[in-house]
Amino acid sequence: MSQGLARPVENLISEFMKLPSVGQKSAQRLAYHFIGRSRDEIERLCRALIEVKDRICECRECGNLSEKPVCPICSNPSRDRNSICAVADFRDVAAIEKTGAYRGLYVVLGGLISPMEGVGPANLRFGLLKEKIDKGFSGEVIIATNPTVNGETTALYIVRLLAGTGVKVSRLAYGLPVGASLEYADEITLSRAIAGRKEF
Amino acid sequence: MSQGLARPVENLISEFMKLPSVGQKSAQRLAYHFIGRSRDEIERLCRALIEVKDRICECRECGNLSEKPVCPICSNPSRDRNSICAVADFRDVAAIEKTGAYRGLYVVLGGLISPMEGVGPANLRFGLLKEKIDKGFSGEVIIATNPTVNGETTALYIVRLLAGTGVKVSRLAYGLPVGASLEYADEITLSRAIAGRKEF
Repeated sequence: MSQGLARPVENLISEFMKLPSVGQKSAQRLAYHFIGRSRDEIERLCRALIEVKDRICECRECGNLSEKPVCPICSNPSRDRNSICAVADFRDVAAIEKTGAYRGLYVVLGGLISPMEGVGPANLRFGLLKEKIDKGFSGEVIIATNPTVNGETTALYIVRLLAGTGVKVSRLAYGLPVGASLEYADEITLSRAIAGRKEF
Repeated sequence: MSQGLARPVENLISEFMKLPSVGQKSAQRLAYHFIGRSRDEIERLCRALIEVKDRICECRECGNLSEKPVCPICSNPSRDRNSICAVADFRDVAAIEKTGAYRGLYVVLGGLISPMEGVGPANLRFGLLKEKIDKGFSGEVIIATNPTVNGETTALYIVRLLAGTGVKVSRLAYGLPVGASLEYADEITLSRAIAGRKEF
């Protein structure tokens, strides 16, 4: 009661402060917002929160979040089954789907290999990729891990995993972000952009 | 499913987008955060949200948010009962309590008089103030409404309401915010600061 706020209000503020990038002020603003909302609206949010926990599982074919055992992407007959995009997590699927530029399938690894954080290949879903290969997949695997040390390590691991299977392996292009300025690009990105130059 | 996200996830994102100053990206970040939390943690937040709705009422003496019919400030025997601070809402109580500079009571009006928005004196809790006067209060009423048109209108209304009751009425000081620069102060604030100057 240090600030003249009722205990349930202070309690709600401290719950909000646990959220990512929510500080004291934003947590207060959120709590004050809900004080003014109807019970119905609050219950709707609670239901949405609980549903995310109860109704979501991992797609058994790609590892993406799904309501059903097989996710809508894997069960969509119009997706290109000759292409598998390997990503670290479901956020990456969402980002790629948003572009509309990819019509194939995914394998959601569940993270990146990170010796520093004790994440090895056994902790990730490389098994799903192996399974697809074992079942006769012979198309292209597009590695879409972040251009970071862990992303590169994971990419190399996939390349080795698929060596000798006859599967084509590619990597998302490195280069200048669209709209970026040469002047401000870092040296590594710029040298990658030069190395990866394309003929007009 | 437009972005490869399961429906409960999209649903949660759209619930978060209803919050003040939460856009698409932040709503996504929040939803993704909760996917990674345990059911326990999610239930704790839900309980906190529902409690704010179910356990909070208005203090019958000052109108502040409270768990009990009389709030902890009004029922605290060590608060100065010769001083009433009139504020627009509970946020203002929290702001003033945080300073630690005030030890009196409050009246939380529930808003400000605003002819433009159809808020007249009848919509606000001036009755609580009247009640205290009728019960023999004869100390000081400190008007702490915002320095805006509606705040000023409300302040003037209180001054008139209390005229002839013998109650001392004061207003929070206008002036330069601490740390501000003269150069950037607006003319009205600066002229108020000059008018309200104090002898060293």
